[in-house]
Amino acid sequence: MNQVGIVSDYSQAMTYELHYWPTIQGRGEFVRLALEATGTSYVDVARSAADTGKGVAAMQRFMDLKSTRHPPFAPPFLKDGDFVVGQTAAILQYLAPTLKLVARNEQAGIWTMQIQLTIADMVTEAHDTHHPIASSLYYEDQKAEALRRAGDFCKERMPKFMKWFERVLAQNPAGNRYLVGNRMSYADLSLFQLVEGLRYAFPLASEKVLVRTPLVLALHHRIATQPRVAAYLKSDRRLAFSEEGVFRRYPELDVG
Amino acid sequence: MNQVGIVSDYSQAMTYELHYWPTIQGRGEFVRLALEATGTSYVDVARSAADTGKGVAAMQRFMDLKSTRHPPFAPPFLKDGDFVVGQTAAILQYLAPTLKLVARNEQAGIWTMQIQLTIADMVTEAHDTHHPIASSLYYEDQKAEALRRAGDFCKERMPKFMKWFERVLAQNPAGNRYLVGNRMSYADLSLFQLVEGLRYAFPLASEKVLVRTPLVLALHHRIATQPRVAAYLKSDRRLAFSEEGVFRRYPELDVG
Repeated sequence: MNQVGIVSDYSQAMTYELHYWPTIQGRGEFVRLALEATGTSYVDVARSAADTGKGVAAMQRFMDLKSTRHPPFAPPFLKDGDFVVGQTAAILQYLAPTLKLVARNEQAGIWTMQIQLTIADMVTEAHDTHHPIASSLYYEDQKAEALRRAGDFCKERMPKFMKWFERVLAQNPAGNRYLVGNRMSYADLSLFQLVEGLRYAFPLASEKVLVRTPLVLALHHRIATQPRVAAYLKSDRRLAFSEEGVFRRYPELDVG
Repeated sequence: MNQVGIVSDYSQAMTYELHYWPTIQGRGEFVRLALEATGTSYVDVARSAADTGKGVAAMQRFMDLKSTRHPPFAPPFLKDGDFVVGQTAAILQYLAPTLKLVARNEQAGIWTMQIQLTIADMVTEAHDTHHPIASSLYYEDQKAEALRRAGDFCKERMPKFMKWFERVLAQNPAGNRYLVGNRMSYADLSLFQLVEGLRYAFPLASEKVLVRTPLVLALHHRIATQPRVAAYLKSDRRLAFSEEGVFRRYPELDVG
């Protein structure tokens, strides 16, 4: 009897399933980073082959099920055995204790969540620079509005948000290496990804802002060089940024 | 020695402080409803008299402090003694166990949070119907864009969100009286407030949608008639909706 095989099967049954659109980083990337940075085993369902019962169709089928107790509103969502959770911040809140990406202390946990929700707000605002009218319309059909919204985002919102993250690092009583306490949390991974996205989408505007937030830049570097994150970023599991995702490089929107 | 006085002072020191803009319901209302529905004692700081050391100036002073460990990005925020928490969903997550507005079961708690975050997403989209370009500009300066965004919101987004809430109620294995399990949670209070806001801002469009979501309407009625909520709604602590808040009645945006 092959005990290793048994252990392996058991472990596979318990493997997390990440469900997200297969061709973009999008909001799924915040979850993927948490899994990758901790060496956690997972299946990226919609990116897996349809002939194994996976693929986008499998994700869509699950979303339409009438029998699910916890139907997700939209991807990303995570399946952990029978338990299903959607909404990026809720997925991270669920995973974090097991992945040791949050302090056990209740107040530190709530503070981490608060930072994550502020990152999520900024991600939505970054998305809305290219889709200020409707996600269902093409960019080209809302370009005039996008130019106006991106101007405000680059000149007002981006500095305001980044200054706040800088302040959180500066006022952390445990030191300025991480957002919460003196260990990496999922919020640090998410802030790394936010900076990555801003640099891709708004190279000029983000440079102007980031030069004034050295602690944020140092954190970004710290995460990028964490061994598991660095290996992931070089792997083909890391999708490229593109003009299909949340962060899009349209030079006319980069009001530097 | 007056022991009652001592107890009273002690209790006052422990009273929650809610910090939010004093003239609008806004996002603060989701926290206020949780406090009111549970008969929890709190001080509405920015709505209190400046000569008692409170008022908007006190809220602003606190936000600017360089010494706070957990500086809030924006109101609302809650102070519980020395602990400070911002972001509506994080405040509710923090308060809920004490106020008994969430199940103790971890998975039910995460599910409640997921629903709350989806409500929060819809609140942001409702806000952006009148401010699709920049919160810092007047409505009149983005009215053309607002008309386009509101059209999509009323015809696509509102039905999609409300249909999901209806489905959550219909697929709740514990019955369709509440969103999670068979007891009122903070998500039920928030969905009540969302329906209130939609009916105020979009009377025609929301009527068309709500007629197809009878479970959501029944939940709204159940919350409105909960004795403490009903008493609160009749009190002068409940501010009126207005064209300064998140939900604004501009008839031209109500694409019914």
